Amino acid sequence: MERQDSNMPFLLKYENVAWYENGKVRILDRRVFPEKHFVICENYMEVKQAIADMVTQSAGPYTAVGMGMALAAYEVRGRSKAEQEAYLDKAAYELAHARPTTANRYGKITYACAETGKKALEAGADPVEAIFNDTIQSLNRRYSRMRLVGDNLLALIPEGVTILTQCYGETIIGTLIQAALECGKSFKVVCAETRPYLQGARLTSSCFAEMGFDTTVISDNMVAYYMQNSGVDVFTSAADTITRDGHIANKIGTYQIALLADCFHVPYYVTGIPDEDKFGKNDIVIEMRDPSQVLAYRGIKNTLPQVKGIYPSFDITPPQLIAGVVTDKGVFPPEQLNDYFTGEQHRFY
Amino acid sequence: MERQDSNMPFLLKYENVAWYENGKVRILDRRVFPEKHFVICENYMEVKQAIADMVTQSAGPYTAVGMGMALAAYEVRGRSKAEQEAYLDKAAYELAHARPTTANRYGKITYACAETGKKALEAGADPVEAIFNDTIQSLNRRYSRMRLVGDNLLALIPEGVTILTQCYGETIIGTLIQAALECGKSFKVVCAETRPYLQGARLTSSCFAEMGFDTTVISDNMVAYYMQNSGVDVFTSAADTITRDGHIANKIGTYQIALLADCFHVPYYVTGIPDEDKFGKNDIVIEMRDPSQVLAYRGIKNTLPQVKGIYPSFDITPPQLIAGVVTDKGVFPPEQLNDYFTGEQHRFY
Repeated sequence: MERQDSNMPFLLKYENVAWYENGKVRILDRRVFPEKHFVICENYMEVKQAIADMVTQSAGPYTAVGMGMALAAYEVRGRSKAEQEAYLDKAAYELAHARPTTANRYGKITYACAETGKKALEAGADPVEAIFNDTIQSLNRRYSRMRLVGDNLLALIPEGVTILTQCYGETIIGTLIQAALECGKSFKVVCAETRPYLQGARLTSSCFAEMGFDTTVISDNMVAYYMQNSGVDVFTSAADTITRDGHIANKIGTYQIALLADCFHVPYYVTGIPDEDKFGKNDIVIEMRDPSQVLAYRGIKNTLPQVKGIYPSFDITPPQLIAGVVTDKGVFPPEQLNDYFTGEQHRFY
Repeated sequence: MERQDSNMPFLLKYENVAWYENGKVRILDRRVFPEKHFVICENYMEVKQAIADMVTQSAGPYTAVGMGMALAAYEVRGRSKAEQEAYLDKAAYELAHARPTTANRYGKITYACAETGKKALEAGADPVEAIFNDTIQSLNRRYSRMRLVGDNLLALIPEGVTILTQCYGETIIGTLIQAALECGKSFKVVCAETRPYLQGARLTSSCFAEMGFDTTVISDNMVAYYMQNSGVDVFTSAADTITRDGHIANKIGTYQIALLADCFHVPYYVTGIPDEDKFGKNDIVIEMRDPSQVLAYRGIKNTLPQVKGIYPSFDITPPQLIAGVVTDKGVFPPEQLNDYFTGEQHRFY
C-alpha cells in the first residue's frame, strides 16, 4: 500500500477525509471546518447518513463509501459466508445511494468493494483489510489520474494570473497545488464563498492558503464586481457530473458564474473525468436539499417562519459556456467530449 | 405631527427604525433581526458609529441622523446660544459623514435639522422638540413621495407574477406593499439573501412575509438557476445613488443580478429619487468596508487567518442594464433621467 505524498493540505490527507479504524469510520465534519471535528460512525448506515448530511462532500464521499464498506465487512464478521456476502451487497447499494446526483460514481466504488470483500472471503482472507487496502489503492489511482488533470489545468494558467474557483473540487485542488509547487508556478486564487455550505470560504481557501497561495474569499454576489474591478483571468471548477455532450452539473452557483465569465470574456475550464454513462443533461439528477439550510447558518435562523427557501444542490452549465473540459487525456472542447471515450484525444491548447 | 399608517410591517414602523426619547436614541439592530434588539445611543457620535457599523442601513440612517440631531440638541441644552449652534453644526457634519456613498443624502437631512434647531433657539422654543418633529414630518414627506414611486412600480408588476429583489430598499418596500394591499394586487417575492449582511434574507423577506406575500429566499448564487427554472418576471431594487446619466449604485451584487437579468430578458427597474448633485458614475464613492465581515458570520469565522477578503459595500450598474428608473414623477429610461430635473416627465409604460 503506497503512502500518500505528505506535502498536502490538512483537508486532503486521506486520514483527515474519512478513515476506517478498529470497527469505526471517522469522517472530518467539513460543515464546521476550519474547526477540526470528526463524526464517528459505528455502522455503514451512519456513514450513508453522514454523506447525506454533507458531513463530507465533493470527493470526500468517494473515500467515505469505501471506508463504509470496510465497516460493513467488520459489522458482519463471523457470520456465514452467504450472510456476509448479502450484507456487503446491501451496504454497497445503500452507500451508493447516499446522494442522487453522484450515485453512479459512488456505486462504482461500493460494488467494487463488495466484490473485493467476497473474493477475500473466498480466499479465506480478511474482507475488512482487503476492502480498506482497496480503498487506499483506489484513492492513489484517483490521485494519479487527477494529477494528469492538474497538470493539464496548470498548463492553462499563466504565471501570476488570478483564478476564480467555485465550491471545493478537492482532488483537483490537491493535484493542481502539487503541480504548481513542483514547477514553481504561482497564481492568485479567488474563492466564491459558495452559500449555503460555504465550501469556497471554508474548504477551498484553506487548502490554497495553507500551501502559500495568495487567497481571497468573496461572497457569491461579488463575482461581477471582482471581474470588473480586479480582474479574473480563468474561472475553473470541478463537476459532479460531466455528460458526454458537454453539459456539466456542479455546485449551485456555477452556472451563473459561467454566465458572468462569458460577459467578461473569462474562459471557464471544467476539470474531471467525464461520466461515460451520462449522455446529456436529461441524465443529470439535481438533488433538492432541505431549504432550511438556506434560511439559516450554523443554527442561526435568518428568516421569519413563514418565509420559504429552495436548495438545489447543483445547477447545469451548458457546453456553450465552457471553454474546455480538462481531463486526464487532455483538454476537450465540450462539444467534442464524446471523443474522450472513442479514443480520439484532443489537446486544443 | 401626522401619525404613520399603522398597517405597516414591524421593520417599517418609525419607532422601530430609530427613535429619540428622553435624551437617548434607540436604533433597531438590524444585524440580528429577526431577533429584536435595540442599540441605545447616549450621544450623537454613538449614532454616527451605529450607522457606520450598519446597526441600521438602507433608509434607516435617514431617520437615525434626524433623531441623532435631536439628541445633539439635547446634549448641548442649557449652554450659550452660540455654543448650541456650533454643536448642531458639528453634529450635522459628523452625522452626514457616517458613510461615504450616501453622505449627500444624509447631509440634506442633518443640515436642515441644524437650521431647524437654530430657528427654534432664535424663537425661544425647544430645539430638541423642533428637530424631532421635523424628522417625523420629513419621514412623512418621504413616505408620501415614495408612495408615488410605489404606485409607479406597482403599475409595472402584472398580477400574480414573481419579482426578484436585492438587499432591502425599505421605503419602497413599505409603499409598494401599501399600494398592492390597497388595490388588492398580489405577486410572489423572491429575495436574494444579500451576503454578507443578509438584508434580503433577514429584512426584505420579513416585510413581505409579514404582510402576507408569498416570499422565498434564495442564496445569492441561485439567481440564474431560479431565473432559468422557476422564472422571474421583474427584477427591482432601490439604489443608494442614482446619477443624472442613469448609473446607479446599490448593494454589492446588484450589478451581477442586472447582468443575469439581461441574459434572461428580465426587466430591471430601479426605484428612487435621482441624485441632483451626482452627474455620472465618477461622482459615486464606493465604500469599502471591513473584509472580516465577509470572512465570518455572526462571530463564526469561516476562514484561516491568512485568507484575505474584500467588502465593497456597493457596485455600479450602468444604464444599459436598466429598463427604467421608477421615480415619483414617473418611469424614466435611464438615458433620459436628466429630464427628471429639467421638468420633462416621461412615463414610458
